[in-house]
Amino acid sequence: MSTDNGYVIGIDIGGTNLRLCLADSAGRLIHKWAAAIPQGSAPEAVVGQIRNGVDELLRAKGIARSALRAVAAGAPGLTDIDTGVVIATSYLLGWRDVPLRDLLQSALGVPAAVENDVKMGAIGESRFGAAQGVRNFVFLAIGTGIGAGIFLNGEVLHGEGWSAGEVGYLIVPGTPEAPAGFTEPGQLESVIGGEGIRDQWREVRPDHPLQATEIFDLAAQGDPIAERVLNRSALLLAYAIRNIAVILNCSLFVLGGTVGLSKPFGDATQRILDERKERIRPRLARSTLGSDAQLMGAVALALQRL
Amino acid sequence: MSTDNGYVIGIDIGGTNLRLCLADSAGRLIHKWAAAIPQGSAPEAVVGQIRNGVDELLRAKGIARSALRAVAAGAPGLTDIDTGVVIATSYLLGWRDVPLRDLLQSALGVPAAVENDVKMGAIGESRFGAAQGVRNFVFLAIGTGIGAGIFLNGEVLHGEGWSAGEVGYLIVPGTPEAPAGFTEPGQLESVIGGEGIRDQWREVRPDHPLQATEIFDLAAQGDPIAERVLNRSALLLAYAIRNIAVILNCSLFVLGGTVGLSKPFGDATQRILDERKERIRPRLARSTLGSDAQLMGAVALALQRL
Repeated sequence: MSTDNGYVIGIDIGGTNLRLCLADSAGRLIHKWAAAIPQGSAPEAVVGQIRNGVDELLRAKGIARSALRAVAAGAPGLTDIDTGVVIATSYLLGWRDVPLRDLLQSALGVPAAVENDVKMGAIGESRFGAAQGVRNFVFLAIGTGIGAGIFLNGEVLHGEGWSAGEVGYLIVPGTPEAPAGFTEPGQLESVIGGEGIRDQWREVRPDHPLQATEIFDLAAQGDPIAERVLNRSALLLAYAIRNIAVILNCSLFVLGGTVGLSKPFGDATQRILDERKERIRPRLARSTLGSDAQLMGAVALALQRL
Repeated sequence: MSTDNGYVIGIDIGGTNLRLCLADSAGRLIHKWAAAIPQGSAPEAVVGQIRNGVDELLRAKGIARSALRAVAAGAPGLTDIDTGVVIATSYLLGWRDVPLRDLLQSALGVPAAVENDVKMGAIGESRFGAAQGVRNFVFLAIGTGIGAGIFLNGEVLHGEGWSAGEVGYLIVPGTPEAPAGFTEPGQLESVIGGEGIRDQWREVRPDHPLQATEIFDLAAQGDPIAERVLNRSALLLAYAIRNIAVILNCSLFVLGGTVGLSKPFGDATQRILDERKERIRPRLARSTLGSDAQLMGAVALALQRL
């Protein structure tokens, strides 16, 4: 191991969970640490948890504090990577204009970088996952919400207000058309985010509640109601993906997030796209990093700070 | 005039018309020239027409051939700006893999650049038009077809296969959902391109054929049938624009092309977008260069070759 070059720590701040991972200067994963984040935690409290996690990780592996060279953190919200400020997060944390990079640098005494969590997932897939060496691709995180991390010419697209890729708000045939408020689910995610898929199922089978991925697994086993939910969801996802592909002329889409990782969902969507035989033919790949995409993106970004 | 630095010529190759414009090294327009392009003209024939036009422009202004420093040409099709090859155009020309940059350089003896015509229009608006100094914007050309020239961080987005921005193929509520073949109009343009709008009107008023812009002018005067066509068209355009804005986080959309320049169309679309009060609120501007957007983009690109 290249211990001379020190270590970095990647941080994934979720709405309810905090995860850290220690890696060496070649990006090799050494050890992980996790904790729950109480709802409504202030930034300072979460940074305190991060400091504890950093200490525990280093202690567990007998690494001196001086060997930690940089950290990077993914935040679940609008993030200005130039100033290092988290502009806004969802209600779970409720942060507004938090100077997260400065807080981390003060608390840990090493250079820090911050990034939106979905864009961080895209960075992870680009450096270590399903999109290594690919200069143009879209990482689609489909969980409760839906977001995209867009790579164009080898760089993350942030947009003029840091919100590029908020594709949960796309409108396609089959989604609601009415405006969605700031704190409401977007039009696309209201139908094919995790909750939306559960709602589709619940309408027909209120007696038998299931998670989105369970519904899709049931569809793969031939359950006709589950198949209808799967096909409808896959069609909407296919429309969203082909529209994004038409605009960007980008063919690789890496599917991540708990719902996006569902193989029946990805397969059904790819089938619809293939059968259309359009000029723009998006190619879907499952995230190879899975739930570690954000964490490994944070490792990659911390390594860039070296 | 900065005659010491010589002159450039911008070239706009359309499906049916060829237009040239002579400019000085500060981008000031000096003189224009135009000719019809016979359907199915071979590239060599069009380059011959261009050579004649260049000669006539220089002769008309008494400028020595040696003072011409560079040219740039917009082509109506998929264009690889690295190799200078026009990969494909519509049936009007029917070109395939034409080394247009080399042909121009050989014929004219000066450095040449080539670009897709819609992207050229975006370059024109960026340098001389409605988007001067704006690093992120979308130029939407709406005529018979619909295309977008996308500027991100001050640069044209080309996409991995040079087809970024072919937004005539977007699917939104109200467009056909079926696949569109390579030579067919795209889903969005089949409804709100010039022909699509005429078709909407013709369904209700087969006795009284009108052009798209005439229909919109009639709507502005209160004709209820024309108003329905206008409102439907504006709603579809609004969906397409907000979806593009959601993906790119880009707020300025410059409307060009014969249909896109219609003030009632732009106004109705802006009204729909404003009334939605969504977080992403696109701002529409009319092209200030109008039908000269492509030509002035070619001047700008030629100036870059100096």
